[in-house]
Amino acid sequence: MSKVKEIQQFLQKENLDAAFITTPDNVFYVSGFQSDPHERLLGVMVFKDAEPFVICPLMEVPDVKTAGWSYDAVGHEDTDDAWDIVMEAVRKRGELPASIAIEKSHLTVERLERMNELFTGAKFVRLDEQLNGMRNIKSEDELNNLRKAAELADYAIEVGCREIAEGKTELEILMAIEFEMKKKGVQKMSFDTMVLSGPKTASPHGTPGDRKIQKGDFILFDLGVVYNGYCSDITRTVAFGEPTDAMREIYETVRKAEQAAVDLVRPGVKAMEIDKAARDVIDQAGYGEYFTHRIGHGLGISVHEFPSMTGTNEFALVEGMVFTIEPGIYNPAVTGVRIEDDVVVTADGVEVLTKFPKELQIIQP
Amino acid sequence: MSKVKEIQQFLQKENLDAAFITTPDNVFYVSGFQSDPHERLLGVMVFKDAEPFVICPLMEVPDVKTAGWSYDAVGHEDTDDAWDIVMEAVRKRGELPASIAIEKSHLTVERLERMNELFTGAKFVRLDEQLNGMRNIKSEDELNNLRKAAELADYAIEVGCREIAEGKTELEILMAIEFEMKKKGVQKMSFDTMVLSGPKTASPHGTPGDRKIQKGDFILFDLGVVYNGYCSDITRTVAFGEPTDAMREIYETVRKAEQAAVDLVRPGVKAMEIDKAARDVIDQAGYGEYFTHRIGHGLGISVHEFPSMTGTNEFALVEGMVFTIEPGIYNPAVTGVRIEDDVVVTADGVEVLTKFPKELQIIQP
Repeated sequence: MSKVKEIQQFLQKENLDAAFITTPDNVFYVSGFQSDPHERLLGVMVFKDAEPFVICPLMEVPDVKTAGWSYDAVGHEDTDDAWDIVMEAVRKRGELPASIAIEKSHLTVERLERMNELFTGAKFVRLDEQLNGMRNIKSEDELNNLRKAAELADYAIEVGCREIAEGKTELEILMAIEFEMKKKGVQKMSFDTMVLSGPKTASPHGTPGDRKIQKGDFILFDLGVVYNGYCSDITRTVAFGEPTDAMREIYETVRKAEQAAVDLVRPGVKAMEIDKAARDVIDQAGYGEYFTHRIGHGLGISVHEFPSMTGTNEFALVEGMVFTIEPGIYNPAVTGVRIEDDVVVTADGVEVLTKFPKELQIIQP
Repeated sequence: MSKVKEIQQFLQKENLDAAFITTPDNVFYVSGFQSDPHERLLGVMVFKDAEPFVICPLMEVPDVKTAGWSYDAVGHEDTDDAWDIVMEAVRKRGELPASIAIEKSHLTVERLERMNELFTGAKFVRLDEQLNGMRNIKSEDELNNLRKAAELADYAIEVGCREIAEGKTELEILMAIEFEMKKKGVQKMSFDTMVLSGPKTASPHGTPGDRKIQKGDFILFDLGVVYNGYCSDITRTVAFGEPTDAMREIYETVRKAEQAAVDLVRPGVKAMEIDKAARDVIDQAGYGEYFTHRIGHGLGISVHEFPSMTGTNEFALVEGMVFTIEPGIYNPAVTGVRIEDDVVVTADGVEVLTKFPKELQIIQP
């Protein structure tokens, strides 16, 4: 079923007149059209009983059609009030909607105030959970894009490992990875590529820089690519030369924690149980205080999407979900290690999309 | 005066109890702390009569301090309700604020609904214009960052020109530019670098790809870097081999249009007059229909910021403002050309930050 039809069914079921979707990722999900409108208005309006339309900057109207949107697309210029164009398209379709579903977790207060003026007396309700629910379960087409994105991320880690050499900087390795990705046709990394070495691995959100790789370092890669609009997100930590026993112990603890979480994935298990499976391993090894973040997050068109895989989220996994599993230990006195996979919930278990080996890779100097 | 003090003066003048700032760029502007919190809560709360605080993910608290924030920073973990931590910090400071200034053009409906529950009966008013006004006038420190960002962008165009060769793809040239920028210490381009060639120059928002450079092409570069949190944004169009007369005519028209707009910049001139100065030149040359976008946009911490330099904006320029001037002609039958500078409004005129030559550069095959 098309996404438009699915939203129309939701509107009928909830007895709502229209839905207005303005988050670029959700516009892409519903219309197939991907764009970063900056501060300009971009949206899809779906009606219970009328044809939907896309509103976008005038110069992008042809691109909306090329992207496969078979309904109307109306354009606004920078000198227009975009809402005039919206209202003209709405009026063409009949009476003004009296109830409109919106993305309350994304729509700005200013835009809602404007809609309140234009759709006088209308009721505004949440569309967020409906869209999250739809996006949470990936179609086979979406899974294929995610598989391909993960395959490219695996290859990026391979490239990173190949580039490691004494005296090379984190940034040099990072650039070599991104260069190779571009050659493979990747238009966009899914977030800023992270290459951290030595003590910097202990900073979960560190910034790659001029630090030169030294023998005995752990090197942490956290990266992903966008393929056909879908993201991957992988982390691997590798050794350059022989690590110390303390480093090995942290590595093995994270590896076991990550595997314990992966092994638990199947429909019906709660997000919090996935978190707990990894956290228990780390706690029992005595590193609990150094695992300072959630186990993972939903993955798809957005690199961080619904659901948030935290230790308190009771959301039960369903077939077709895709999320990350990424425990880490960040002990400034020893090292940081994080291992992250992208996983799909299958009918009876799990499919791991990221396949780069998780046994400690030791790169010989 | 510190940004916090300036906001406190605004609160006193408007008789408001507090301001809550949650846009990452504004948080950086006010606190010096730069971060992409994804869906997590990041904010600065400023009070009329009490000490401000930053709320951020727990693991980033040390970074807030390192960034130079001398007040309190409170952290939340993924398992917390971040608003509990906010309310605890607010209560420590006395009575709950009854009037709160917020960024209505950024704050989500969901967050305002939450604040409505927590600050029962409070009045929420716009902080947007105050912040836009503050950010619109750059300090000397900010201008120095913007100058440096522009200098790096000039160099990036130089690198791009050097890389042009028959049979090279747009992506190969793009990668060489970004590689060189990383070597210069650039952590982040200010947006996706654009390298378009031949007929693709006629698409104002095209995507670089596998097209190979041919003799007789125009090549359009649109790019910028982030330096100390501040963005540059430059466009140059250059020729590979001799262009046709029709291409030259379009180039010279854009060049004159751009120069006419630059020459008009001084305090008191309206944004719409800057747009008109360029548009008139293009109209008179008969290319009006092919100049399909505004003349430019404010530039600073965000690559697109206040004000929008459109043909209808009556906003009068003031000393210390920085914006782009970027007319273009996109004639699919001939070529596309855009020329873009970053300019500062000075006491009596204009300082052009981007200095790469605007006379048509012909690269010999």
